[in-house]
Amino acid sequence: MLRVRATRERKLSRGGARAVKRGSPPGHHRVPAARPRAARGGGAGLSRDPALPGSPGPAMLRLLAAGCLLPAGPASCSRAWLPRPPGPASGRGLLSRQGRAAAGSAGGGGGGGGQVPALKTPKGTRDHSPVHVVLRDRLLAAVVACFKRHGAAAIDTPVLELREMLIGRYGEGAKLIYELQDQGGELLALRYDLTVPFARYLAMNKITNMKRYHVAKVYRRDNPATTRGRYREFYQCDFDIAGQFDPMIPDAECLKIVHEILSDLQLGDFLIRVNHRQILNGVFAVCGIPESKFITTCSTVDKLDKMPWEEVRSEMVGEKGLSPEAADRIGEYVQLHGGLDLIERLLQDPKLSQNKLAKEGLGDMKLLFEYLSLFGITGKVSFDLSLARGLDYYTGVIYEAVLLQQENDHVEEPVSVGSVAGGGRYDGLVGMFDPKGRKVPCVGVSIGIERIFSILEQRVEASGEKVRTTETQVLVATPHKHLIAARLKLISELWDAGIKAEMLYKKDPKLLKQLQYCEDTGIPLAAIVGEQELTDGVVKLRDVATREEVDIPREKLVNEIRRRLEP
Amino acid sequence: MLRVRATRERKLSRGGARAVKRGSPPGHHRVPAARPRAARGGGAGLSRDPALPGSPGPAMLRLLAAGCLLPAGPASCSRAWLPRPPGPASGRGLLSRQGRAAAGSAGGGGGGGGQVPALKTPKGTRDHSPVHVVLRDRLLAAVVACFKRHGAAAIDTPVLELREMLIGRYGEGAKLIYELQDQGGELLALRYDLTVPFARYLAMNKITNMKRYHVAKVYRRDNPATTRGRYREFYQCDFDIAGQFDPMIPDAECLKIVHEILSDLQLGDFLIRVNHRQILNGVFAVCGIPESKFITTCSTVDKLDKMPWEEVRSEMVGEKGLSPEAADRIGEYVQLHGGLDLIERLLQDPKLSQNKLAKEGLGDMKLLFEYLSLFGITGKVSFDLSLARGLDYYTGVIYEAVLLQQENDHVEEPVSVGSVAGGGRYDGLVGMFDPKGRKVPCVGVSIGIERIFSILEQRVEASGEKVRTTETQVLVATPHKHLIAARLKLISELWDAGIKAEMLYKKDPKLLKQLQYCEDTGIPLAAIVGEQELTDGVVKLRDVATREEVDIPREKLVNEIRRRLEP
Repeated sequence: MLRVRATRERKLSRGGARAVKRGSPPGHHRVPAARPRAARGGGAGLSRDPALPGSPGPAMLRLLAAGCLLPAGPASCSRAWLPRPPGPASGRGLLSRQGRAAAGSAGGGGGGGGQVPALKTPKGTRDHSPVHVVLRDRLLAAVVACFKRHGAAAIDTPVLELREMLIGRYGEGAKLIYELQDQGGELLALRYDLTVPFARYLAMNKITNMKRYHVAKVYRRDNPATTRGRYREFYQCDFDIAGQFDPMIPDAECLKIVHEILSDLQLGDFLIRVNHRQILNGVFAVCGIPESKFITTCSTVDKLDKMPWEEVRSEMVGEKGLSPEAADRIGEYVQLHGGLDLIERLLQDPKLSQNKLAKEGLGDMKLLFEYLSLFGITGKVSFDLSLARGLDYYTGVIYEAVLLQQENDHVEEPVSVGSVAGGGRYDGLVGMFDPKGRKVPCVGVSIGIERIFSILEQRVEASGEKVRTTETQVLVATPHKHLIAARLKLISELWDAGIKAEMLYKKDPKLLKQLQYCEDTGIPLAAIVGEQELTDGVVKLRDVATREEVDIPREKLVNEIRRRLEP
Repeated sequence: MLRVRATRERKLSRGGARAVKRGSPPGHHRVPAARPRAARGGGAGLSRDPALPGSPGPAMLRLLAAGCLLPAGPASCSRAWLPRPPGPASGRGLLSRQGRAAAGSAGGGGGGGGQVPALKTPKGTRDHSPVHVVLRDRLLAAVVACFKRHGAAAIDTPVLELREMLIGRYGEGAKLIYELQDQGGELLALRYDLTVPFARYLAMNKITNMKRYHVAKVYRRDNPATTRGRYREFYQCDFDIAGQFDPMIPDAECLKIVHEILSDLQLGDFLIRVNHRQILNGVFAVCGIPESKFITTCSTVDKLDKMPWEEVRSEMVGEKGLSPEAADRIGEYVQLHGGLDLIERLLQDPKLSQNKLAKEGLGDMKLLFEYLSLFGITGKVSFDLSLARGLDYYTGVIYEAVLLQQENDHVEEPVSVGSVAGGGRYDGLVGMFDPKGRKVPCVGVSIGIERIFSILEQRVEASGEKVRTTETQVLVATPHKHLIAARLKLISELWDAGIKAEMLYKKDPKLLKQLQYCEDTGIPLAAIVGEQELTDGVVKLRDVATREEVDIPREKLVNEIRRRLEP
C-alpha cells in the first residue's frame, strides 16, 4: 500500500519541520526572492555531515570570524563611511533601514511632479548599500568557491537577449518578461533566467561539453512584488553541466553542490526535494491524462506547495479540464514522498510499472539515490511526487531545497522559511536553439542568493556585530595647521607601496576629528606627521584601539604597517 | 604670447605620441568601448614613477605571473573545459574567436525565420567566454584593489531606473538611452552610466558624505556600434567622492587613482588631459558667447579630439550659430595646452584675468597642479583647453586619460589607441534630485575597462600564454571498470575537505582518457583508486607533469594534496 497523506499534514509531520512555506511556484532555477525572517540563532539545530579531519570550518563561521566583522566595542564602529550621520543611512540602522525599506519605495518626499523626479528605484528593485554589498559579496564568494571546487568555468552573457529567444521557454512565466521598447532594430527583452542564455550560448558556439557557472542578475515583472519581499531584479547563481554522459552522475553532483552550500552556510536544517518529470508524466498517463495536457497539469501540481490538495484538484478539474476521477487518481500519487523504499514500491506499482516513462524515471531515481548514498547526503534528500516545477523545459530529474524551521527556535515574529535552491535536467533546450536540432543534454542548479542573503543579514544584525565597509589600514593625519603638503606626500608614498590609506579632505583638520574618523570607520592605525616628525625623519604611528604611539623612521614605516596588520 | 598650434600638428608633436585617436565624444565617465589593437610588447616604453622599496610589483606583472597563466608546454594546455574540441571554442582560438567574433554577430547559420530563433546576441553586445571572464575578473580585481586602497566602499544600484531620472542629464547622449516598453506601471530605462544613479542614491538616502566605487554594466544604443568595436553593453568602474571639502583635494586624488591604475597595469605610456568647465565658460564669455550657449559650445569643442579645428569652427558657426569672429577667438584658446606655466600665463591674460569664472577655474587648476606635484604625477598630466567632455552635469575640473603609442613599437597593423579613463566634478547633480535642492558636491572618475581589457587580451594572446579557466587541483580517476562507487566516495571526501576535484562523468572511463583530461585542462594531480589501492587503504597520487606516482595512505591524502599545491 502506498503512503498517502494530506499535504498540510505531511508538511507539519516531518521531523521538526513546521510551517514550510514557500513563495510562488518556483520556475527552473527560479528561487523566489522572498525575504523570510530568519530564526535568531537559526544555526542552533544544525546537523552537519561528518567531514574529514582537517576539513576547513563552515564558510559561515569563516565569514563571521573574518577580519571585516569587528567586535562590538567602543573603539570600533559600523558606520560605513559616514562621519556625519545623515538620516536613514547611519549607525545600526544601516543594515535594516537602507536595506529593507528601499524596495522600490521612495526615499525622499519629493513626489512625482515638477522638476524633481520621484526619488525612488523602480518598483520591485532596490539599491544595495555598502553593508549590503560587503555581506552579499561574501555570500557570493562562498557560493562561487563551491562551484570552483567542482571544476566549473565562468561565462557571462548580456542582460539583453533577442525577444524571440525567450518566448515559449517559461510556461506561465512568459508574462513576467521585461520587454524593451522598439526603438528601431531588434526587439529585445531582459533575461528571465540564466538557463536559456546558457543554452543559447552552447548552441551558438557549437559547444557539446561544458561545466559552467554564472552569477548574475535576472529580471521578472512579478506582481505583487514588494509586499512579499519578492524582487524584480535579483541574483541567480547557476551551475550547469552540459554534455552526453552516463546517467545520473552529473545530476547527483548538482545535489551534492546544494548540500555543500547549504551546509557550509549554516542556514539551519534543510531538505532537498527531488522528483522526475518522466515519473510525473508516467503518473499522468496511467491516470488517463492526454499527453497534450502533461505540461499544464505539471504547473498545477507545482502549486501543491502553497495550496492544499483540494484547491489544486479543483484547478485541475475546473481550469485545466481534467475529469474528477483522473484528478483523484493523480492525487493518490502526488502526495507521496520518501526515499529508496518509495522508489522500490513504485517500481512494483501495478499501473506505474507498466508505463515506460515512469519505469525509466524510477530507474533514474534509484541510481540517483545510490550515488547520493555514496556522497553521504541521502539523509537530507526526499523523493517527493508533489514537486513539479513550473518551467516547460525540464525533461528529467527536478529538485528544490527548502530551509526547515527548527522546533527549538524561539522566535517572536512569524517566520517564513522557503526555497533556497532549485533546478533539474533539461535535455531538449539546447536543441531548440540549434538550427539542425542537435541536442546537448544539460542538468543544473540555481542557488537563491536573495533569500539566503536576507537570513545572513538578519543574523549579523541580531548578533550586533559591526560590519566594516572599507578596508583602510592607515589614516594619514597631521597634528596642526599648514601640513597638507606633508600629508599628501606621505599618503602618496603609502598608496604607491600598496597600503590602504585615507586622509581627511580638509586643509587643516583637527587631530581629534581625524582620530574620531578612525574610530568611526574602524581604521586600525593612524600615521601622524607634524613639524617635529618631519624634522626627525619619523612618523608617529598610533594604534587607534590602544592609543599607543611610537615614532617610526620614515623609511621603515611601510614595513612596520605591514607587520602590525599581519593576520 | 600664447602658444597656439593646429590640433593635428599638436597631436603629432607630443614627445613620441603619434596618432592619438579616440572614439566618439566621451561623456562623463564615458570611456568609449572601442577595441584598439595594442602594440605588441606595448609595455616596453613604459615609464614608472619611483616606488618605495618593498613596493609590490605592478599588477600586470602579478597577473602574468599568477598560477592561472600556465607556461606553454606539452604537459599543460589552455583548452578550458572542452575535452572534445567542438568548432569555434577550442584551443588557441578560444581567446580570439569566441571573444571577438561574437559582438552581436551570429554564431550559427540558423537565420531568422522558422522555429529556431536567430542564434545571436543583440546588436552591440557579446558573450564572455571562460577565458574572457578569467582575464576580465583579474583586471577588475586590480581596479577594485586600487579603489579600496583609497578607502572607498562599494554600492550597487538597479540596472533599471525610472525614465524621468535619466532625462536631461546626458546632453546629446540622451538619444542613446535604452527605454523599456510600457507594460503598465512605471516608465523605465536602462542606466546610461553609474554617475546619475549615484547622485540619485545620495539624494534619496540624504547622504552628504560618501566615497564609493561601483563596478557594473551600463547601456547605450550607440550607432554604429560593432564596426568600431564599440559595445552597447559595457562595464564601467567608477570611483566618486561626495561631500563638501576643501578645494582640489578629492579632485587630485581622482587623478592619482587614474595614474596608479594605468601605471600598475603597464598599458604603455599615457597622458592625463585636464581642463576646467569654469575656465571654458570664462573663455566663452570673453569671446563674446552668450551664457545660454555655453553647454552646446562645450559639446562642439569636445569634438576637437576627432576632427580638426576648421571643422569644429564651422560647426560652431553653422550649427551653433556663433559669429565667425567669436569662433576664431575661441580657437585661440582651446588649442592651448601645457602645465603650471600655461596656468600662470593665462592668469596674466588681459581678457581672462578679468573674468570671474576663468579666474576661479585657473585658481583651482593651480592648486590642483600643486597637489599633483606632491603626488609626483605632473609628468603625465597636461592642462589642455581643448578638453570639454560632452555631458551637461560637469561644473569644475574635467579630465580624461589617453594611451600613447610608443615610437619604438613596431606594429604591423594600424593601431588605434584611445581614451581609457575620464571624469570630473559635478557639484549640481545631486541637488537636481533633492526635493529641496540641497547640493552635494561630487567629483569622480570612470575607468574604461573594455578598452584596457582588449589590450590585455591581445597581449596574453601574443605571448602565447595559456589561460586556465578552472582551478581544479585533482582529478579522481580509476584504472579499470566497476569502480564508479570508489570514485564517488573519494571525490566526496575531497570536496568535503575543500579540495577542488573533478572526475569524468562516465561509469567506466579509460585511464588514458582521464589522464588526457588532466593535461587538456591543466589539472596538476590525479588521485587514482583501483582494487589494489582499495585493499591497501591507499590512493595513487600522480603528478600529471612528471608522471611520477606515489601511494599515499588514504587518511593522509588531503594533507598531501595541500602540501603539493602550496605556492
